[in-house]
Amino acid sequence: MKEIYLGIDLGGTKMLAALVDPEGRVIDHMQAATLADQGSERVISRLIALAEALIDKHSDEGGSKLRICGIGIAVAGILDPQEGTVLLATNLGWRDVPVGRMLEQRFSCPVQVLNDANAAALGEWMAGAGAGTKNMVFVTVSTGIGGGIISEGKLLLGASNSAAELGHISIDRNGPLCACGNRGCVEVYASGTWIAGRVQDDIARGSRLPEAVVAAAGGDPDRISAKHVTAAAQDGNEYAKQKLADAGAALGAGLVTFIHLLNPEMIVLGGGVSESGPLLFDSMLQVVREYGIPGMVDNVRFTGAGLGLFAGAVGAALWWKYAALSRAVQTC
Amino acid sequence: MKEIYLGIDLGGTKMLAALVDPEGRVIDHMQAATLADQGSERVISRLIALAEALIDKHSDEGGSKLRICGIGIAVAGILDPQEGTVLLATNLGWRDVPVGRMLEQRFSCPVQVLNDANAAALGEWMAGAGAGTKNMVFVTVSTGIGGGIISEGKLLLGASNSAAELGHISIDRNGPLCACGNRGCVEVYASGTWIAGRVQDDIARGSRLPEAVVAAAGGDPDRISAKHVTAAAQDGNEYAKQKLADAGAALGAGLVTFIHLLNPEMIVLGGGVSESGPLLFDSMLQVVREYGIPGMVDNVRFTGAGLGLFAGAVGAALWWKYAALSRAVQTC
Repeated sequence: MKEIYLGIDLGGTKMLAALVDPEGRVIDHMQAATLADQGSERVISRLIALAEALIDKHSDEGGSKLRICGIGIAVAGILDPQEGTVLLATNLGWRDVPVGRMLEQRFSCPVQVLNDANAAALGEWMAGAGAGTKNMVFVTVSTGIGGGIISEGKLLLGASNSAAELGHISIDRNGPLCACGNRGCVEVYASGTWIAGRVQDDIARGSRLPEAVVAAAGGDPDRISAKHVTAAAQDGNEYAKQKLADAGAALGAGLVTFIHLLNPEMIVLGGGVSESGPLLFDSMLQVVREYGIPGMVDNVRFTGAGLGLFAGAVGAALWWKYAALSRAVQTC
Repeated sequence: MKEIYLGIDLGGTKMLAALVDPEGRVIDHMQAATLADQGSERVISRLIALAEALIDKHSDEGGSKLRICGIGIAVAGILDPQEGTVLLATNLGWRDVPVGRMLEQRFSCPVQVLNDANAAALGEWMAGAGAGTKNMVFVTVSTGIGGGIISEGKLLLGASNSAAELGHISIDRNGPLCACGNRGCVEVYASGTWIAGRVQDDIARGSRLPEAVVAAAGGDPDRISAKHVTAAAQDGNEYAKQKLADAGAALGAGLVTFIHLLNPEMIVLGGGVSESGPLLFDSMLQVVREYGIPGMVDNVRFTGAGLGLFAGAVGAALWWKYAALSRAVQTC
């Protein structure tokens, strides 16, 4: 019988369920809107229905159900992985939700609750761009900045499963205040939200430079996102290019910190903002090469993420394989 | 027969050899001047003589030699631990010195070469202030700033044994240029060398404020070290107090980065500058509490180092116990 795992990525906007084989290949997937405002019970009911539909689709017509060896569920928030509880997930409006136990009862198989950024890092490491490495940092640059750390072939979780707050590393202790309470975090320079915010600041200041970005946003300054900045930059607009280059330089300063502390052999970059490519990465790499310790920087390969939107679900699914390899947990 | 390990801390100024039991207790030790300018062969000859004298002292009068289960040698520099070679140690003037092999041949027992900061971190974790923890950061604030990271009960070494460059984490990407090539490193604000340098800068600028520090240095501004700044501060001098408080605040900004990336349960502070105590730590803790993510900072215990000058030798000795525990290496 084939080993199959179920990976779930439960985000604030949508939920994704994927059947994943031990090599990390997505056999099939389904997704649905999260509708978080309906409350945790209804969200979990619909999540169970989604997963069941996916499993049923791959079960024998004779009635023998597809057997799932383990379920992993990736959630953004503060978790208690031992208890399978989401302690706090602001994007879902959840507090103390025992989603792991609820899925375990329903599917009669072990369920692991994982931080979404750690799950994505695990996915990229086991089946994506980082496959074969032992020391890797996965950085996702999206509305916020997050990620996960693989150190000597293990996911670095820290004392309370909160390690790898990659976006909340200060590169200027006198910089702008971040929502986390720290000043000058990488996130306040290089995240999509802050890139867009800086353009809006320029507009508020009366600058006409952002006009190409406003045009990319359909003429509505309030709708501006990092995507529109990228679109304008790709059209050759110098102002938009500079905004992305500034973000890239800040990201590079953060990467120098990761390199000096963790000495990785690879840094994998994912997330929507990363799709700006060289517009972001040229200045990033320039800063890394200028300020990083050469012997350490020279050892690092920089690469784009390989699993795209599936990274979280694949990583959550492969958690069971990871656990089996590193701790002799037996599933199937 | 009692298990005994030999730990060696080979510094630029002095060499220390210690007999260490499996609990990390120093049974006896001897030390001597390094005299690095005599070249590596003569340094190693004297190191061997020192170690032999120590072993002979604890051997039976009947002639049965004390049996050593393993030797660890801590050196500041770039190492190849597999080959037992010091690739580059600027404080010793060494390049490609196979010190591990040389000791192995002489003592007929396994020899491990370790980075001195990692060795000290291992010592503090296995037998010092960090005993019993699983996620710990050891920071030594001395002429420079260095340290080591214990993550999930393992020494974090990185892809090329260069991880945990704790002093070379930028807290201001526009700050002063550090010798490592980076800007605004913690080391350029909080290390002994830079604390003293700032006082000397003030003197060069014609400020009379540092007079108490000059007095502590015996009237000679060129002799000023962080020790003299501390002495003046301990005598109540406000200028000196402010210099240490500034250094502590910068150190605190660095610790916030360590906490957000590594989520440790304990941070152990050692090194000569740490002996300034509250003069350094009050502002450090204030910054950590103000800018750290509360849920992560609240989990961290801050404590002084427990092994003092023996940390490196004890950690190097206990490497063999650590290796036996984590990889089933057998020595005795």
